[in-house]
Amino acid sequence: MLTIAIVGAAGYGGGELIRLLARHPDVTIGAAVSSTYAGRPVWEGFPGMAGRVDLTYEPTAAPDRLAECDFVFLARDNGAAMRQAPDLVAAGCRVIDLSADFRFRDTAVYDAWYKGPHASPDLSAAAAYGLPELHREAIRTAAVVGNPGCYTTASILALAPLFAEGPAAPGVGGLVDSRTIVVDAKSGISGGGRAKYCQEFHFAEANESATAYKIAGTHRHTPEIEQEISRLAGAPLAITFTPHLVPMTRGILATCYAQLTSDVGRDDLLARYRSFYAGEPFVWVTDGLPSTKHTALSNMCHIGLGVDSRTGRVTVVSALDNLGKGQASQAIQNMNVMAGLPETKGLETCSMWP
Amino acid sequence: MLTIAIVGAAGYGGGELIRLLARHPDVTIGAAVSSTYAGRPVWEGFPGMAGRVDLTYEPTAAPDRLAECDFVFLARDNGAAMRQAPDLVAAGCRVIDLSADFRFRDTAVYDAWYKGPHASPDLSAAAAYGLPELHREAIRTAAVVGNPGCYTTASILALAPLFAEGPAAPGVGGLVDSRTIVVDAKSGISGGGRAKYCQEFHFAEANESATAYKIAGTHRHTPEIEQEISRLAGAPLAITFTPHLVPMTRGILATCYAQLTSDVGRDDLLARYRSFYAGEPFVWVTDGLPSTKHTALSNMCHIGLGVDSRTGRVTVVSALDNLGKGQASQAIQNMNVMAGLPETKGLETCSMWP
Amino acid sequence: MLTIAIVGAAGYGGGELIRLLARHPDVTIGAAVSSTYAGRPVWEGFPGMAGRVDLTYEPTAAPDRLAECDFVFLARDNGAAMRQAPDLVAAGCRVIDLSADFRFRDTAVYDAWYKGPHASPDLSAAAAYGLPELHREAIRTAAVVGNPGCYTTASILALAPLFAEGPAAPGVGGLVDSRTIVVDAKSGISGGGRAKYCQEFHFAEANESATAYKIAGTHRHTPEIEQEISRLAGAPLAITFTPHLVPMTRGILATCYAQLTSDVGRDDLLARYRSFYAGEPFVWVTDGLPSTKHTALSNMCHIGLGVDSRTGRVTVVSALDNLGKGQASQAIQNMNVMAGLPETKGLETCSMWP
Amino acid sequence: MLTIAIVGAAGYGGGELIRLLARHPDVTIGAAVSSTYAGRPVWEGFPGMAGRVDLTYEPTAAPDRLAECDFVFLARDNGAAMRQAPDLVAAGCRVIDLSADFRFRDTAVYDAWYKGPHASPDLSAAAAYGLPELHREAIRTAAVVGNPGCYTTASILALAPLFAEGPAAPGVGGLVDSRTIVVDAKSGISGGGRAKYCQEFHFAEANESATAYKIAGTHRHTPEIEQEISRLAGAPLAITFTPHLVPMTRGILATCYAQLTSDVGRDDLLARYRSFYAGEPFVWVTDGLPSTKHTALSNMCHIGLGVDSRTGRVTVVSALDNLGKGQASQAIQNMNVMAGLPETKGLETCSMWP
Repeated sequence: MLTIAIVGAAGYGGGELIRLLARHPDVTIGAAVSSTYAGRPVWEGFPGMAGRVDLTYEPTAAPDRLAECDFVFLARDNGAAMRQAPDLVAAGCRVIDLSADFRFRDTAVYDAWYKGPHASPDLSAAAAYGLPELHREAIRTAAVVGNPGCYTTASILALAPLFAEGPAAPGVGGLVDSRTIVVDAKSGISGGGRAKYCQEFHFAEANESATAYKIAGTHRHTPEIEQEISRLAGAPLAITFTPHLVPMTRGILATCYAQLTSDVGRDDLLARYRSFYAGEPFVWVTDGLPSTKHTALSNMCHIGLGVDSRTGRVTVVSALDNLGKGQASQAIQNMNVMAGLPETKGLETCSMWP
Repeated sequence: MLTIAIVGAAGYGGGELIRLLARHPDVTIGAAVSSTYAGRPVWEGFPGMAGRVDLTYEPTAAPDRLAECDFVFLARDNGAAMRQAPDLVAAGCRVIDLSADFRFRDTAVYDAWYKGPHASPDLSAAAAYGLPELHREAIRTAAVVGNPGCYTTASILALAPLFAEGPAAPGVGGLVDSRTIVVDAKSGISGGGRAKYCQEFHFAEANESATAYKIAGTHRHTPEIEQEISRLAGAPLAITFTPHLVPMTRGILATCYAQLTSDVGRDDLLARYRSFYAGEPFVWVTDGLPSTKHTALSNMCHIGLGVDSRTGRVTVVSALDNLGKGQASQAIQNMNVMAGLPETKGLETCSMWP
Repeated sequence: MLTIAIVGAAGYGGGELIRLLARHPDVTIGAAVSSTYAGRPVWEGFPGMAGRVDLTYEPTAAPDRLAECDFVFLARDNGAAMRQAPDLVAAGCRVIDLSADFRFRDTAVYDAWYKGPHASPDLSAAAAYGLPELHREAIRTAAVVGNPGCYTTASILALAPLFAEGPAAPGVGGLVDSRTIVVDAKSGISGGGRAKYCQEFHFAEANESATAYKIAGTHRHTPEIEQEISRLAGAPLAITFTPHLVPMTRGILATCYAQLTSDVGRDDLLARYRSFYAGEPFVWVTDGLPSTKHTALSNMCHIGLGVDSRTGRVTVVSALDNLGKGQASQAIQNMNVMAGLPETKGLETCSMWP
Repeated sequence: MLTIAIVGAAGYGGGELIRLLARHPDVTIGAAVSSTYAGRPVWEGFPGMAGRVDLTYEPTAAPDRLAECDFVFLARDNGAAMRQAPDLVAAGCRVIDLSADFRFRDTAVYDAWYKGPHASPDLSAAAAYGLPELHREAIRTAAVVGNPGCYTTASILALAPLFAEGPAAPGVGGLVDSRTIVVDAKSGISGGGRAKYCQEFHFAEANESATAYKIAGTHRHTPEIEQEISRLAGAPLAITFTPHLVPMTRGILATCYAQLTSDVGRDDLLARYRSFYAGEPFVWVTDGLPSTKHTALSNMCHIGLGVDSRTGRVTVVSALDNLGKGQASQAIQNMNVMAGLPETKGLETCSMWP
């Protein structure tokens, strides 16, 4: 039985961790930490837990309690984990961080996009990128795992198989011209987090609206996608990434475009995708097209694609739950890998419908 | 290990049964029956089950397969179960019916509201009403359980404690004047079912709209509520029930009104409600006010209340998921009771948030 | 041509006033006042006005500009208008106030519900209650009109015809027993206003949720409804009023219940309602049942009803747009009445669909 | 005063035409034709018109009534207008067709995408493409105007200024490489029409879901966009177009990508866009980013953009109301142009908020 702690346990990611880990057969929740709700039952933060989860929030400062835990999930703002993780690691905990702090192997990238300098560059360099489909072995033994961003997981899983056979030539990797990648992603509003109340998130303003934001290479999930696809492509690449908000609570749909470098057809591509993800319990390559609703509340990522022979371009569409495979349930998948448990433990549920 | 079958397994109720029972530790799904999807994998009916549930729909006519099952869940249109259940019972199956066919002890009531005559009046008379909080002992041994309607569960659980101490006088039962009961219920659109595509359910027409329908004693869930509350009140009573559609997928909120017959205060009433539901794992009496979102995807019913001393009236508000405690997960709770399993088996999950 | 000003012109009510008055053929918008947006074009507050409305917000302190206006619409927080109105009236402006400040003829009621004392009790006593269907003559000549609350308009218009023939006996007025009135109202989220960002209004928390709040006689619109219905009933009465939030942006649906005192049928009642509202351009009595969507963006109130002969109770359902007939367009209807214009001027548009 | 008729007046486009034309100061609605609702008042088709629009639907067969009209709006299924228009034109009517029948100058394109052959190739060749910003002069004198598709208007208006200075070289036109154009469009559900009830449009299935459909060059709006942009580019081009459904009733957001051929910056591009659309009453080029909500219920198209210097790619985002500038109000704009009226007549309203 693993003892775990969740820090930042009153936000959306923290709440989803509690909801799932409370039923994980190999886990005991040792501590749920929230400065806002310290001393109060978790159902005051999440009324839906009333009668079903019997936990009380602890104040932020309870380092001894955390030190006793096998795993600590950090679900805090960017910049907090890189200060808290070193002590936890020193105390023997393994850390799964849901912020951006441990996602970059090159801390210069972190510093550039997140107004560094990074407080724990060595720990960051040694951390594993928490996408098991690409980094399972590194995750298995890592002290710290940087859990990917929500947009990022959808985008990388959609693009990775295009580079399965490695780089073709410098700047041109895999089946597509790596200079032509565009990712157009649509997110539900929960992606903005619980604590931030800005006018855009007011129901009356967000409802009945679709909008783009941080366009043209300005969103912080861009370098994460580039880090991972560049690695697969064998050469640095830059993508155009556009995040959008659409009026739903959960879900990310990423529509990815790239120019094909050879005359590969749809069936061939689907077969390559299926081969790339063979045996992966949480990736489903569909003959049809994915919808975010098909993945809601699950740890699944659905992927579909089409080839436009008129333009020689491939369109790959991926869908996932931004709080599921895009955050909390992926963090649990990482914990399962780190602990040597079956990877699907506690994550067997299929998506809700309707 | 129980073997179960679901008939009508491609609708919303049937899908929710599959989703939950696929993870129930004491259950094997022996058959998922759908005439529409016969021969196809369940994930064609519910794409969110892809990669997570490995089942193939069977055609309607597979009586032998059903006969081998310990429990058969019937999730079909009104009028079908009363024809199918007798053979199943004769074959030794126990039946949990999600339609209206086995909800009425007095088949004359069924005949009047559902254009009878009832095809199995004897089986209907012997069936148990599947609300464990009120009929646990009868359910335990019943061959057939009539699972309550979605509006009904919310309404009965909200009103029942007012009659805990039995009738005060003929026509005036419990703490309230039983002639003054009004139930104003708001439902998500999934309550209308999956197969019926009418213009009112078109997203563009249902979105941004709240509407009442079948008002003034014309909705078929009315006699169910009356059957159960009359029993508690010790005398026949009639209520005014108004169903509404509001633009959400799941959830029922029932706001119930009645004139108090004595000078009881809010704290006293809350204590009586807590006493009435003491030990019930799926009813939560809150100091605050319930929201449907607090119960989404769980088997919980939340209840809150207030006393208006200016008018001498009590307002009781209950919330549940119409496909959860209002239908599928309640059916599983009934199965647990019938099978002698812990009542919460397979139903431990708290509600989703957000 | 009337010159008008709007104070508090960056909120939902103020914005709707601009949108409608910018096209009103007899109106010039002399000033749009907002302390938040002072000096900036109105399209920074409302991007949908870009290219269509050419106005710049003025700072709060521009009393001379207001004094030149024929009408001043005050769309500010409760408590502000009663301080600002006296100077405006002294300067010869006529005032239409969208807050609660001038809705009560008895300032003791205001003081009790809004933590008084009222700053302008005399002006308040002389103000007209801005529901033209009931107070057209008083509105015509009033210096100050207190525009009704959103819940209030829907509730009063639904109940008023029941008392058309005056009180039957003390405490029992009109066609119903006035002690038995229950109003169960469902509102879109915009009713909470634009400036208040509380967690309940976050899209991710409000979406997919129906909830009750301020139940059992604690919501401030209660005394407004009681003031008007008591007047019609000829005796003080108290009602039970329950506000709810449902996940839509605009709209109020009020479902009203009362015990009938005589054996009146549905057709008879419909005829009485049609007679009561004969000639009213903005009230539609329907044979069917109203939906909020049928009234969206219009100044219409739709009313339908049913009689439950089993319980002797009438159910009346009314629908309107909380920012339309429930607020801004009703304020313009009041202006038309006050100015002697045709009452429908600038308000001819039917509701949007879908 | 113009007399107009609307054929197909019970669908979403037809309803929006009635709503707007009923208030157009220079228009009388001579006939509203619907086979479904023939003989019934328009408010049975659109309850929101009750009390505000006094019209009765006429049966399909009323050619004389149509012949008397100055303008006939055809809002019927694809394939109907090309059969009905010749007689109307012969009778002296001018026709504005909302279907695809008259959008293509090359009927071979129509035949290929819409399973021709076209029934009126000559009339089609002579028709004007109803996008006033690009074809104002041709529209002015056309007998038949083919009103653009909803996706199409958003896409063309977003892309056109990139080709303002004409082709640079064959296959490479304007400021961008015309081989690199990707349009990723998000639509509200009303775009699917009112009459088609498929499971995808059921509220419970569409809500909380974002999905792509007809990807990789298979959607019929693709050749429309290509026709218009090819004309501007001076050479045939092919684009990749992806339509999506997101859970809202109205609105289209088109996010367009292309590789820049020169080192142009964001400010320069914004200036070019503003110059291109100078004087256009219904196009707003914003420094910010558009949201569909900013255009709801108006005839506006909002456009914003960014340049990603890392990838040398431009991202242009446009927003409009699919039933407004994307359909019905654009048809009225066309009528105004054809009739020599001020182009904004009857279309002055800004968008609703919220």
